[in-house]
Amino acid sequence: MYLEKINKPNDIKKINKNHLYDLADEIREFLIESISETGGHLGANLGTVELTMALHLVLNLPEDKIIWDVGHQSYTHKILTGRKDGFSSLRKYGGMAGFPKTCESDCDAFNTGHSSTSISAGLGMAMARTLKGEDNTIVTVIGDGALTGGMAYEALNNAGRANTKLIVVLNDNNMSISENVGAVSQYLDDIRTTEKYLELKEGVKGKLAKVPKGQDMINRIQKAKASLKSFVIPGMFFEEMGLTYLGPIDGHDINAMVKALNEAKRCKTPVIVHVITKKGKGYLPAERHPARFHGAEPFDIETGLPKNKKLSPDYTDVFSTVMCKMGERDPLCMAVTAAMPDGTGLKRFRSMYPDRFFDVGIAEEHAVTFAAGLAMGGFKPIVCVYSSFLQRAFDQVIHDVCIQNLHVIFCIDRAGLVGSDGETHQGIFDLSFLSTIPNMCVMAPKNKWELSDMIKFALKYDGPVAIRYPRGKAYDGLQEFRAPIVFAQSEWIFRESDICLIAVGSMVKTAVEVRERLKAAGKNVSLLNARFVNPLDEELIKEAASLHAHIVTMEENVLSGGFSQRVGAYLMREGLFCKHTSIAIPDTYVEHGNVEILKKEIGLDTDSVTAKILADADGLV
Amino acid sequence: MYLEKINKPNDIKKINKNHLYDLADEIREFLIESISETGGHLGANLGTVELTMALHLVLNLPEDKIIWDVGHQSYTHKILTGRKDGFSSLRKYGGMAGFPKTCESDCDAFNTGHSSTSISAGLGMAMARTLKGEDNTIVTVIGDGALTGGMAYEALNNAGRANTKLIVVLNDNNMSISENVGAVSQYLDDIRTTEKYLELKEGVKGKLAKVPKGQDMINRIQKAKASLKSFVIPGMFFEEMGLTYLGPIDGHDINAMVKALNEAKRCKTPVIVHVITKKGKGYLPAERHPARFHGAEPFDIETGLPKNKKLSPDYTDVFSTVMCKMGERDPLCMAVTAAMPDGTGLKRFRSMYPDRFFDVGIAEEHAVTFAAGLAMGGFKPIVCVYSSFLQRAFDQVIHDVCIQNLHVIFCIDRAGLVGSDGETHQGIFDLSFLSTIPNMCVMAPKNKWELSDMIKFALKYDGPVAIRYPRGKAYDGLQEFRAPIVFAQSEWIFRESDICLIAVGSMVKTAVEVRERLKAAGKNVSLLNARFVNPLDEELIKEAASLHAHIVTMEENVLSGGFSQRVGAYLMREGLFCKHTSIAIPDTYVEHGNVEILKKEIGLDTDSVTAKILADADGLV
Repeated sequence: MYLEKINKPNDIKKINKNHLYDLADEIREFLIESISETGGHLGANLGTVELTMALHLVLNLPEDKIIWDVGHQSYTHKILTGRKDGFSSLRKYGGMAGFPKTCESDCDAFNTGHSSTSISAGLGMAMARTLKGEDNTIVTVIGDGALTGGMAYEALNNAGRANTKLIVVLNDNNMSISENVGAVSQYLDDIRTTEKYLELKEGVKGKLAKVPKGQDMINRIQKAKASLKSFVIPGMFFEEMGLTYLGPIDGHDINAMVKALNEAKRCKTPVIVHVITKKGKGYLPAERHPARFHGAEPFDIETGLPKNKKLSPDYTDVFSTVMCKMGERDPLCMAVTAAMPDGTGLKRFRSMYPDRFFDVGIAEEHAVTFAAGLAMGGFKPIVCVYSSFLQRAFDQVIHDVCIQNLHVIFCIDRAGLVGSDGETHQGIFDLSFLSTIPNMCVMAPKNKWELSDMIKFALKYDGPVAIRYPRGKAYDGLQEFRAPIVFAQSEWIFRESDICLIAVGSMVKTAVEVRERLKAAGKNVSLLNARFVNPLDEELIKEAASLHAHIVTMEENVLSGGFSQRVGAYLMREGLFCKHTSIAIPDTYVEHGNVEILKKEIGLDTDSVTAKILADADGLV
Repeated sequence: MYLEKINKPNDIKKINKNHLYDLADEIREFLIESISETGGHLGANLGTVELTMALHLVLNLPEDKIIWDVGHQSYTHKILTGRKDGFSSLRKYGGMAGFPKTCESDCDAFNTGHSSTSISAGLGMAMARTLKGEDNTIVTVIGDGALTGGMAYEALNNAGRANTKLIVVLNDNNMSISENVGAVSQYLDDIRTTEKYLELKEGVKGKLAKVPKGQDMINRIQKAKASLKSFVIPGMFFEEMGLTYLGPIDGHDINAMVKALNEAKRCKTPVIVHVITKKGKGYLPAERHPARFHGAEPFDIETGLPKNKKLSPDYTDVFSTVMCKMGERDPLCMAVTAAMPDGTGLKRFRSMYPDRFFDVGIAEEHAVTFAAGLAMGGFKPIVCVYSSFLQRAFDQVIHDVCIQNLHVIFCIDRAGLVGSDGETHQGIFDLSFLSTIPNMCVMAPKNKWELSDMIKFALKYDGPVAIRYPRGKAYDGLQEFRAPIVFAQSEWIFRESDICLIAVGSMVKTAVEVRERLKAAGKNVSLLNARFVNPLDEELIKEAASLHAHIVTMEENVLSGGFSQRVGAYLMREGLFCKHTSIAIPDTYVEHGNVEILKKEIGLDTDSVTAKILADADGLV
C-alpha cells in the first residue's frame, strides 16, 4: 500500500516518516515473492532495504550519484527509482538487469558487476564534479567482502589524500558471498562485537581530562595523531588512511543512517560511513543459508527450497568430486579460491583437506601469485576461479606463473555464456587471453569424463595449465570416446570427409547435434574434439585440412584471439586453403538472459550453426 | 679489499664485524663504477646495501629465501651471492639480468619485475614450507612505493591471519620511482618524521600507570585493543591488519637491522620490519636526482651526467609535447598515471595543468577505473602507462571502460621490445589482449607526426581508444605521408604489385628498409601502414589481397592474438587465398639485451625479415 506510491525517483520522500518501516516491510515482501519466481540475488538485497531507503531520503537522484559496488544489491534502488514492474522480467533476456545499468535508468550512475571497483569510479566522478565546479553528492556503497579486493585499497589510499567530497558507505554484513576471510574482516569483526570501543570513545577522553597532567597528555596525543578519536574509536584503520570515519551504525535503523549520511554530506573530504547490516534480513531461510540465497534459483517461499530439482550434475559437481579424489590420491594437490568456495565446488575439499585449502578473499591477483609461491614451494595448487574473474589476474598469470613456467593449474568455471548475470560475468574471453600467454597450456573438456581426465593430466603436466568448462549441466554423451589425454593432441570422434567440425569443449555437444543435421542433409561430416586450444594440434589440423574441403571451427569464446582465429591464421600461413567457417561469439558484449536464448541470438545454437555451415558449404561439397 | 673475499653465498659472515662498513663502502664504489659503465638501477641499489648485508648476515642462503619485490634492488644481493663478475655484462644480451632470476642462482628464490607481488609469493612459499614441516626463513623485501599496489594489501590481509612464519621487510625510502603519493605514504611519512611517536611509546604507558585509576585504564585499553602498543606506537596500521610490527629502524645501521631481523625470526606469525633507507645513498647526484638515477644510462661519475647525449627525441618526448598542447587546446583533456609521471613524459603537463594531472600510485587497476569515473563525469582522461604494466588492468579496461564504451584514452609507452629490463617488461602482448576487447579501438603510429595525429584523433573519437608506441627514438621518416586519420582506415605508403607489406607502428620503419632490399632483389613491393589493429581495415586488406600474390604482416607483438593472426584468419575466412608471411615475435618470452640484438635473435630485424620474405616468395612472384 505504501509501495504503490513509489513510482519514480524521490517518491520515497513523500512517505510519512512513521510509515517508512511499513514501506521497508512491503519492499521485503515484494523482493521475496518476486525473486522466489524469477530467481536472483536475494540475501544481499534483503540486507540493504533500509540502507537504500536512507540513501534515497538523503540524496536527490539523479543529480546525486550512487555507485553500487558489485551491484547485485541494487534491487531496492531499482524499486525506489520506479522500476518495480521490471522485476517480473528480472535477469531475463530483454528484461531488467540484475545489476545497475546506465542505459536502464539515469539513476544508475555507473555499471558494476565485478567487485571492488566502486571507490575508484566514485573518486573519478567526484573529482570531475569538483573540477566542473558542481556540488552534487557522490556515494559509493561497498561491502566488507569487496573491501578485501586490492583495488578498493588502492582507491582508498588515493581518496585519503584527495581534496574532494566523497561518501563511501561500508555495508558490513560480515559476509561477501561466502564466509569472509582475512585480517581486515577480523578487524571489522572486532568493531562490531566489542561495545568496549563505544564506551572507550567517550570514557578515555573524559578520564584523561580529569587526571593531573591528563590535559597535557591529551594535547600531546592530539598533536601526534591529529585527532584523539583516531586512537580509541573504531575505524582507526580508515582514519590512518586519511578518511574520516563515522560508525558503526545500525544498518536497519533508517533514522540513524539518515543522520550519519547528512553528517557525511557536510564533510569536504572523503568520509567512510560504516553500516552494519544482516544479509537475508527478514527472511529466515536466507538469514540461515546466506550462500544458497546469494544468487538463488526460483524457490518455494514456505520452505526456502529450490522449486526446480537439479536432475543431473553440472560441471561444478563433477569438478568437486574429482577434486576430493585427487586430494586423497595426491598429497601435493591443493586448492586456492578467491572467496568462491561454494561457487567453484570446493566445499567438500575444504572439509576433507582443510590444510590444503586456501580462501584468500576477493583477491584474484593475490590468489594467483600466492599459488605461484605454493608451486615454487613444491606443491600443485589448483586455482579455482570463474572465467570473468580470472581477467583480474591476467598479469599475475603471465608475470608470476608462466614466465617461471610454474606448475599452477587453473580450473576455470563459468567459461562461456553464463546467462542471467549478463555482460560483466560472461566468460567469453579466456581462450583468447590465456592462449596469448607463452607456456600456458589451455584445454577444454567435451564432457564430464573428459573434465576428470584433464584434471588428472594437469596434475601430471609440469607447467602452467588451464582447463575451462561452462556453467550448467555436464554433458554425458560420447562416453565411449575416452582416448588418453596427450599434450597438444586432439581427438577424432568421427572421421568422414567433405566437412570437418573442429569443436572446443562445450561446443562438441553442439557439434554432435549439428553433425546429425548435416548428415540428414546428405553431407559427410567428420568431428574433431580440439581438446587443446594452446598449443594447437597443428598436425591433426593439417590432416583435417587435407582430407576435407570445408573446415568449421566451433567455440564458446569471442572471435578475436580465439580458437577459430588461431586455426584460420594457421591454415592461411601454411597455405592449407579450404573453406573455413568460424563459429564463435561475435566481438561484442552479450547481455543477460537464458543461455539457450542467448545462443540463438548470437548464432551459437544447433539451428543457426547448421544453417551457417550449409550456407557456406553451398556448392562446395 | 673486503669485496675480494666475497665469492659465494655466506662469505659475508667471515668478514670481521668491524669491517662491515668498509665492505659497504666498497660495494657502493663498485656499484657506482660498474653502473656508470653499463647503466642500470643505481638509486635503489645504493639505498639497500646495508639492508642486504644485514639480511645475508642473518639468513642462511640458499636454504632461507629472499623475495625482492620489483627486483631491481637486488644488485648487492647478486654481489653477495658470488655474481660480482656478472656486472660487466649487466642487462646485456646473454649477460646477467637486472632482476632476480631463479635460473641464474639458487639464491634467487622467485622471479620479480612488476611491483607488489613479493608478499603473495612469499606467503605461498611460507605456507608450503610449513606444510612440508620445514623451518627455513622466508623474507620478502618490499618498498613503500610497491605498498600502494592493491595486490600487496590483498597479501597482507591474507598474511594477517595466516598461521605461518613470514618476514616482510618494508624498505621505506619515501620514494618509489618518482615521488610517492597516497594516504599510506603520508602515514609512513608521519612515522618517519615524528619523534613524538617514539616518545609516546614509552611515555604514555608510564604516565598512565602513575595516575589514579591509570592502571585500570591501561587494562581496559589493553583488553579492547589487545595490546597497548597498537594505539600509540607507529605501525598501528599494520598491527590492525594482524601483523606484528617492528620499527622504524635505520636502514643504514647494520647492527640495528641484524637485531631486528633476529627478533623477527623468532615470531611464529607474519611480522613486518620497517626499515628507513635513503635512495641513492652515498652518491650525491643519485641522492639529489632520484628519478634520473632510478634506471640510469651510462653516466660520468664526476658530474653524474649521462655519457651519451640523446640526439633526437624519443616517442615519450613527442608524447610529452603533444600532451601539453592538448592540455591547452582542450580543457577536458586530463592525464592519469600510476606512479610514472617521469617515464611516461607527464612532468611538463603536471606542472602546467596540476588540476588535470593525477598520479594515483603504483595502482594500475585503480588508475583505469578512476579514469572511467572521470570520463563518466564528462572529462577526457588519458591513461599514460607502460605496455607491460597495463596487463595489470586488463579486467578494468573490459569491465569499467569498454563495456560502458567510455571515452578513456590509453597512451601506451614501451610497447614492443624494451630491451635491458627483460621478460617482465617487454610490451609484447598489448595488441593481442587489447584487440580481444569489444569496443576498444587499437592504433599504432608509424612515426612521430602520426603519434601526434593519433592523439588528436583519440580526443575526438568518442569511445575507448589505445595508442601504442615503442621505447626509443621516434621515427622521423615518411613525413610526407600524413593522410588524415580516419577510423578503421589504413594508409597506403607505396602501391605496387606482387608483394604487399602491411606493417603496424614501429614496423613501418623496418618495412621501408625491407622494401628497399626487396626492390633491389627485383621485386615489386607495396607498403600499407595498418594504423588500426582493431578494428581491422578489412576493405583495404581485401584490396591488398586481390592485388598481390603475397601478403606480409609485420608487428612488434607476439604472434598469438596479434595483427598477423587477425589478418591471416580474416583472409582465410573470406577465401582471399594468397601467400601469407607473418612477421611477429614468436610466442615465447624475450630475455634482456639490446633491442637491436634481440630483434636479430627473434627475426624482426631488416635482414631477417627480408630473408624470410624472399624465402617465402621463392618461385611465387
